[in-house]
Formats: sequence, structure tokens, C-alpha cells
Amino acid sequence: MTWLETVSERIGPLDATASAAVAARLDRLTKPPGSLGRLEALAIRLAGITGAVIPRFEQPAIVVFAADHGVTAQGVSAYPSAVTAQMVANFVGGGAAINVLARRAGAEVVVVDVGVAGPIPGVGDGRGPGGAGGAQFIANRIADGTRDMTREAAMTPAETFAAIEAGRSTVAELIGGGCDLLGVGEMGIGNTTAASAIAAVLTLCPAAEVTGRGTGLDDPAVRHKVTVIEAAIDRHRPDPADPIGVLGAVGGLEIAALTGAILAAAEAHVPVVLDGFITGSAALVAAAIAPGLPPRLVASHTSAEPGHRIVLAHLGLRPLLDLELRLGEGSGAALALPLVAASTAILAEMATFDSAGVSGPS
Amino acid sequence: MTWLETVSERIGPLDATASAAVAARLDRLTKPPGSLGRLEALAIRLAGITGAVIPRFEQPAIVVFAADHGVTAQGVSAYPSAVTAQMVANFVGGGAAINVLARRAGAEVVVVDVGVAGPIPGVGDGRGPGGAGGAQFIANRIADGTRDMTREAAMTPAETFAAIEAGRSTVAELIGGGCDLLGVGEMGIGNTTAASAIAAVLTLCPAAEVTGRGTGLDDPAVRHKVTVIEAAIDRHRPDPADPIGVLGAVGGLEIAALTGAILAAAEAHVPVVLDGFITGSAALVAAAIAPGLPPRLVASHTSAEPGHRIVLAHLGLRPLLDLELRLGEGSGAALALPLVAASTAILAEMATFDSAGVSGPS
Repeated sequence: MTWLETVSERIGPLDATASAAVAARLDRLTKPPGSLGRLEALAIRLAGITGAVIPRFEQPAIVVFAADHGVTAQGVSAYPSAVTAQMVANFVGGGAAINVLARRAGAEVVVVDVGVAGPIPGVGDGRGPGGAGGAQFIANRIADGTRDMTREAAMTPAETFAAIEAGRSTVAELIGGGCDLLGVGEMGIGNTTAASAIAAVLTLCPAAEVTGRGTGLDDPAVRHKVTVIEAAIDRHRPDPADPIGVLGAVGGLEIAALTGAILAAAEAHVPVVLDGFITGSAALVAAAIAPGLPPRLVASHTSAEPGHRIVLAHLGLRPLLDLELRLGEGSGAALALPLVAASTAILAEMATFDSAGVSGPS
Repeated sequence: MTWLETVSERIGPLDATASAAVAARLDRLTKPPGSLGRLEALAIRLAGITGAVIPRFEQPAIVVFAADHGVTAQGVSAYPSAVTAQMVANFVGGGAAINVLARRAGAEVVVVDVGVAGPIPGVGDGRGPGGAGGAQFIANRIADGTRDMTREAAMTPAETFAAIEAGRSTVAELIGGGCDLLGVGEMGIGNTTAASAIAAVLTLCPAAEVTGRGTGLDDPAVRHKVTVIEAAIDRHRPDPADPIGVLGAVGGLEIAALTGAILAAAEAHVPVVLDGFITGSAALVAAAIAPGLPPRLVASHTSAEPGHRIVLAHLGLRPLLDLELRLGEGSGAALALPLVAASTAILAEMATFDSAGVSGPS
């Protein structure tokens, strides 16, 4: 039995005892019961995920998987594929939005090349630290981008499994090094097309409902993108009951890696903070593999991509933020990390009614 | 002419030149134009408020005004009035939610007694630092709480002006000391009743539409609270065109102080991050005094109090967060500070397409 075949059993249910202890503690703190609203519900769930009565998040990390997409040959993106490699170099140099936002949230950024096409400017093949405030870089390229899903499967089964394993091993190593809260992000020109195709297959929605502007398409270009996705789904007719087959047919190397990363964090009882539509599509695949997964995920925000709301509803997740973001990179996850950490900091640091000498309701 | 009579003229319009410079810079940064959504709109507005092309917020503070309410004699709160003083002591000791959340946001907390009834346990009369992570305390008590608005005016005109001045002088001193981003909060058992009365008068809404559970009333108690507010409004018939008269009739000492504080920050071009319904009601009063005020305010969140949405709509403000908070203290403002700071950090720290060698749209 492989790791992937047995991971669902090992994820298991949330720790109800820890959640109950946190719920009881929240009502002893110097505030009206329930007055911190959704932060309290989040703290209770984080206790269930981690099994800790006072979960502490002292080493958050954001892992960003990067890869290219053969389907860009069909003209589905506003930007050229070369931008994927250029942006990876920007992550390593510390100049991208995710660097700025993660720095403010006190989170390390790790960028993993699992399938960029072509060289990455100024970045070596090995691992290494980035520039000041830059990301750690991990070279683990499975292929030079996917194949064009309108002509053939995006990935072979071997590539799909290798990309999942790249995600799993990266996260296992991060958690082994002390990471206790995992944000996930991605970079890949063309990847909203792959995510829309996955979402259409796994949520049983028409492609037109889960397809949006990506990095900035106009209306005719969005209509063209929908026909490209429909053509790919028509060609492969992927089976929603075979999530790894769906990934291989219409997915992406970074989406497969995200799937492995999310499952690995869930298995280790480390909360996963999702970013936008792409990471959501990976979570859909992961939840199809491990149906107990969704309560272990935190939805950071709902993005401007129309498919994102559908994906989050399918996962039963309510996002913390609604800022009309559509950047990716893990940017929404980074913006939500302070809220996640705050929800449990109140458990550790607030006084109780007894300790502070504050009266209860009259 | 007093400060209050002329403050509206001095607030003036936003700096359109600074906003335009920020909008142009945002489109040169390494991200698709507009992809940071509402954070970009916020950065553009913060430039307009501050007049800075790259606004920097290095010394955020949260000022919490505390006072008691005579109307609690009518049984409008789930908690006894003594909790106001007890919670002020808790702020000074560092054990309240606002202490935890402000600490995480890197913001100082300053708590000002402008009208608490009775002694504050363990806190001297003078100024002084709190315990570890506690709030600075300022004693500036105008009266020992307001009078019962169902029987007489909550405050005399002299008390109303003195409380406004307490807010103004506190904020002028904070800004003089370097504060460049101001969150506002409050503590006062019974103050959702005063805020609902103010909101009903100034938005012309029925009291029942702007009245909620406060710290945790049940349905019959909320109906009673509505009749109390209706009785107070019937007795005083406050004129919406006389906002200071409205404050005096049905307001509160902390709400008057918040009004002065908000106007003083706006005058100094320091952005004000509102908290919940009470600070929103003070902003309503302040906007009635200075109609140009609202674009200088940032709505941190929309609370569980039904009147809050109505107040924010009246001010034309869209909240950043929707976490069903109903605590007050400045807690929502503290949770939103990292988003406010992040929106302008991207201006200062992100690479441009040119500097990073990233291609634009194809």
C-alpha cells in the first residue's frame, strides 16, 4: 500500500476533547460568551485539528509550488508562460507580494519548482536561500510544464504521482523542521484553466460557471477559455470518482504537488490555510482522496474567480476574508495568518473572569 | 470660534495627487493590475488621507474611551455597571482581548476614563503604564457616568463639550508623540443603548431596526431595550441637524470623546480605523459635524449588532472583515490593523516589473 492509498485512514477525525476544552475556556475569558464570533469557532476547530488545548503557532510557513501549463498554447492567459519562471526568481529575490505579506505575518516562504518550463533567471539548480526577505528555493522539477490538455493528458500517471510526492515530501520536511501552520500558494501562468477544469469535473458544474478572468482576460477571452476547458473535458471525460485521474488529465504539476502537500499537513495535524481558486482546486482533489480532510482546512479568503465560491461551498468552508483578491502566490493565506494566530493567542494570553476579578452577567 | 466649530473646514478633501501617484505605482508592481483587490483601493485611499505617496504606519495606537451609562437603571444590559471599571482595570493589567490583539498588531493601547462610575480597582488617579502588555491609563473623568436618558438628558452641554475635548486632546497628544494610525475602541456597560438611540436619530431609522443584543440579551430583553430607547427619543425629540444636542440627550461620555478623537485624527490626516457599532455611532455624530469626514475612516469590520450595517451604509463605508464580532474595546480595529498596514507595505517593498525583469501582458 502506498502513502497515498492509506493517507485517508491516517487523517482521522478532529479531536473533540481538545475542541470541548477550548470551548469551555473561551467562556471563562473576560468577554461576553461568543463575543469574538468566528474567531472563537476557529479556535475551537484549530484545537480539534491540532489536538492541543492551547494551539500555538510559532513557525508558520507558506509553501508556493510553481509550474507551467501546456494549455497556454491555446491562448488562455493574459500573460506569457515566461512569467512563471520570472516570478519564481522574484519570489527568491524577495520582491513579490507574497514576500511582503508573509514577512508581515512572520511566515517563511518556500518556493518549489515542480514543473516550470525553461530556466529560472538567476536561480541555481540546488536549494538555497533567497535574497533579503526572499524565499527559500527548492528545485524538484518533474517536467518542463504539462502537455496541452486539449490534445493529450496534461501529465502521465508517473508525473502525477511524482508531483504529489514532491508536495508531500516538501511539507513533511517543513513540519519536521518545526513548521506548525502551513499556508499554501502557487505560481503558474495558465493554472486557472487547469483549476477550472478540475472544479468542473469534481463539483459537476458546467465549465462556464467555474471559469473566470484569471490574471485579467476580457469577456471574449473568457468565453474562449471556457471552450478550451470544455474541449479538454470532452476529450478525456475524466471520472470524478478517480481524482488522481482527473489531476493527470486536466490538472497541473503544481496542483498535484499542492494535493500532496495538503494531505501531508492534514496527516501531521498541522492546519492548512488555503489561498485562492488554484489551491482550492487542489483541496477538492485531496478531499476526494480523503473525505475527512475539509475540517482540517482554513479558507483564508474568497477570490474574484467565480469558481472559488463554488469550490469552497463544495468543501463546506467559509472564508475569513473577502477582499476581491485574484493574485495567488499564497497572498490571501498570508493575509489571513494573523487572524488564525490571533484566534488562539486569546486562549493563551487573556485573563479569566476569576483571575481578573470581573463580574459575570447580572 | 471654537475648535469644534471650525474643524470641518480644516479636514478638507483627500489628496487626489497622492492617490493618483499610488494608483500608478500599484500598476508597476509585479502583479496583474488590480489583483490585490480591495487592498489596492485601500492603499489609494490611505494616500489620499495622509497625503503620502508611500504611507507608512510605524506607530499605530488604539485609544479606548470608557464610561458608564445611567440608562442601565432601566435594565438594558446583561452585565452590571461595575464591569466597566473592572474591565478598565483588566485593560491596564493587560488581560483583555484588546491587549492580546493590539500586541499582535504592534499597536499601543491607551485607555481613557472619561466617565466611569465608581473607583477603578487597583488603578491610581494619575497616568501610568499598565502591567506587562497592559494599556497606558489616562484619568480624565468628566462625570461619574451619564444620567438616565429616559428621565433627563444623558449629559449637560458642558459635560458633552468637555468629553469631546477629552477625546480631541488625547488624540492630539498621541499624534504629537508620533502615532500615525489610530484605532478607536470603547468600554461602557449600556453603551449599545446610547449608540442605538444616536443611530436611530441620525439615520432616521426606527429604534427597533438599529437595536440588538449588546453583550447578550435574549429576545424579550431586546424588545424592552427598544421601548427604553423609544421612550428616551420621545422625551427629548433630539434634532438630527444638531449632532451635539443628540449626543447630550441620548449619548454617552465615551461616545462624545470618540467623536472628538475621530475629528482630531481626521484633522491631522491620520487614518482612523473604526471598531464596531459604538465607534460607528460616534463617527455618525462626527460626520454630521464634518461632512467631509467619512473617506478618512476605515471600517474594520461589520459586527453582529444589526445597527452597525446601517451606520456603515450611512457613512458609505465597506468593512474589511465580517467575523460576527460583538465585543467592542477596539478588538475589530486591532484585527484589521495588519490589513491596513499590508496595503501600503506592498507599495514600499514590492519590486516593479522593470526592476524584477518580469514581462507584462502578452
